[in-house]
Amino acid sequence: MTEGLRVLDVLRVNGGHRVRDGDVAAIEEPMEVRIDGESFAVLMRTPGSDRELAAGFLLSEGVVRDPSELGTIEHCAVADDATRRNVVNVHLLYDGHRTRLDQRRRVMINSSCGLCGRVTLESLEAEAPCITAQWTLDPAVVHELPVRLRGRQTLFDRAGGSHAAGLFDPGGRLETLAEDVGRHNAVDKVIGRRLLREDLPLGETTLVVSGRASFEIVQKAFLAGIPVVCAVSAPTSLAAELAERAGITLLGFVRGDSFNVYSHPDRLG
Amino acid sequence: MTEGLRVLDVLRVNGGHRVRDGDVAAIEEPMEVRIDGESFAVLMRTPGSDRELAAGFLLSEGVVRDPSELGTIEHCAVADDATRRNVVNVHLLYDGHRTRLDQRRRVMINSSCGLCGRVTLESLEAEAPCITAQWTLDPAVVHELPVRLRGRQTLFDRAGGSHAAGLFDPGGRLETLAEDVGRHNAVDKVIGRRLLREDLPLGETTLVVSGRASFEIVQKAFLAGIPVVCAVSAPTSLAAELAERAGITLLGFVRGDSFNVYSHPDRLG
Repeated sequence: MTEGLRVLDVLRVNGGHRVRDGDVAAIEEPMEVRIDGESFAVLMRTPGSDRELAAGFLLSEGVVRDPSELGTIEHCAVADDATRRNVVNVHLLYDGHRTRLDQRRRVMINSSCGLCGRVTLESLEAEAPCITAQWTLDPAVVHELPVRLRGRQTLFDRAGGSHAAGLFDPGGRLETLAEDVGRHNAVDKVIGRRLLREDLPLGETTLVVSGRASFEIVQKAFLAGIPVVCAVSAPTSLAAELAERAGITLLGFVRGDSFNVYSHPDRLG
Repeated sequence: MTEGLRVLDVLRVNGGHRVRDGDVAAIEEPMEVRIDGESFAVLMRTPGSDRELAAGFLLSEGVVRDPSELGTIEHCAVADDATRRNVVNVHLLYDGHRTRLDQRRRVMINSSCGLCGRVTLESLEAEAPCITAQWTLDPAVVHELPVRLRGRQTLFDRAGGSHAAGLFDPGGRLETLAEDVGRHNAVDKVIGRRLLREDLPLGETTLVVSGRASFEIVQKAFLAGIPVVCAVSAPTSLAAELAERAGITLLGFVRGDSFNVYSHPDRLG
């Protein structure tokens, strides 16, 4: 198996056929970057080339400007075995990096990644109850969802390069749509609209996204109480794992007459 | 013109034909979210539904858990006119949100967004010199770049749902490749690899990305001194603007026999 891949149990639905199978997904895991032992950032990444990722990330963040400023970069020896491969400590060689870090920290930044300190699935689960909504979704409706979303993507029609998120009712009616250059923003916009209407949790809603389903997308659905997430493209390993634990039915590769079910297939009629 | 769109000047290259034209791009602009007047996060987003975005983002971040906790959400009256539309202030109604914020801040999080306090193009430009590399790139080579990148995407072949970034030399030879579930991570990994080899700036390198070119992708290229960025899909408005200012040749929609040049076409042979 190529590095960075994991086999997920999946129910493949193709027209009237349903078969249990294995599906290969890209691994997504959090990596914590520490600077001289102090936590600096957590990135959701595919394991592999972690030292390179840490170095390139610190360059992009303006913390490092030259190779001579980088000392050792290594997986953290103090973390326990289970988390060790996901913690990288960077030792900086120049004076004054505290000043650069302090400047950076004056503005708390986030590209709507949604991880915000909740590095483990366990700590995330403590924040919201498992989703137990009992209604069922007709597979014939599932096939229609991406088509209906795509039919309303006016930004994408004109410019390309944008993502869409839509909230649908159990009958497959599109209730709310948003487009944005950021995948996460589109999801935040549709959920935020319902939040402003004081219309949460969204227990009878399906979230449809025009691209992939990453951990953060499923996390946003979880915190809004959405029981079904439907992605046109692939899920990551961690998205499927969170969906299983959170009580969310996760559908991926929803294209034409087929789709894959990665968790809680009981909600399919 | 639909909200969220901007027309960019572009040079369209199609086989031997070159024509100046306008190209419609999705607008990307930073939006600062303030909580009770204090800066909390900056998101790169397409303007529109800003209040919804702020509300949904705070739900996803665990700062807000219920509609009753949200007070007013409005574009900031104290910011000057030019930035006002990009600053949203949220007033929270519950006690104890300082505790939630403090918990959150204990781990400094970032999904490799790269914006990190550098909200304006001006402040970013202060960090690195404009790129002045003089070599030229053969359009016949440009057409080959995405094909060569795609030919090496083993993670994508197996699982889908992953992005790739590659660094190419002026002759079109792939020097470094990385795949990751995160677009930004893939770029950080290839640049980080060269940083660890003490091989910066990358003045004779073309960065090729398998998806779109957003602001952050061009920013990462800029800080690494890369003069040419080539995207298989669309650029955002801000990506094109930064490329123009930073001295970067930005190519988009590089597919088959054609591509668009959004900035500095002088590097095309």
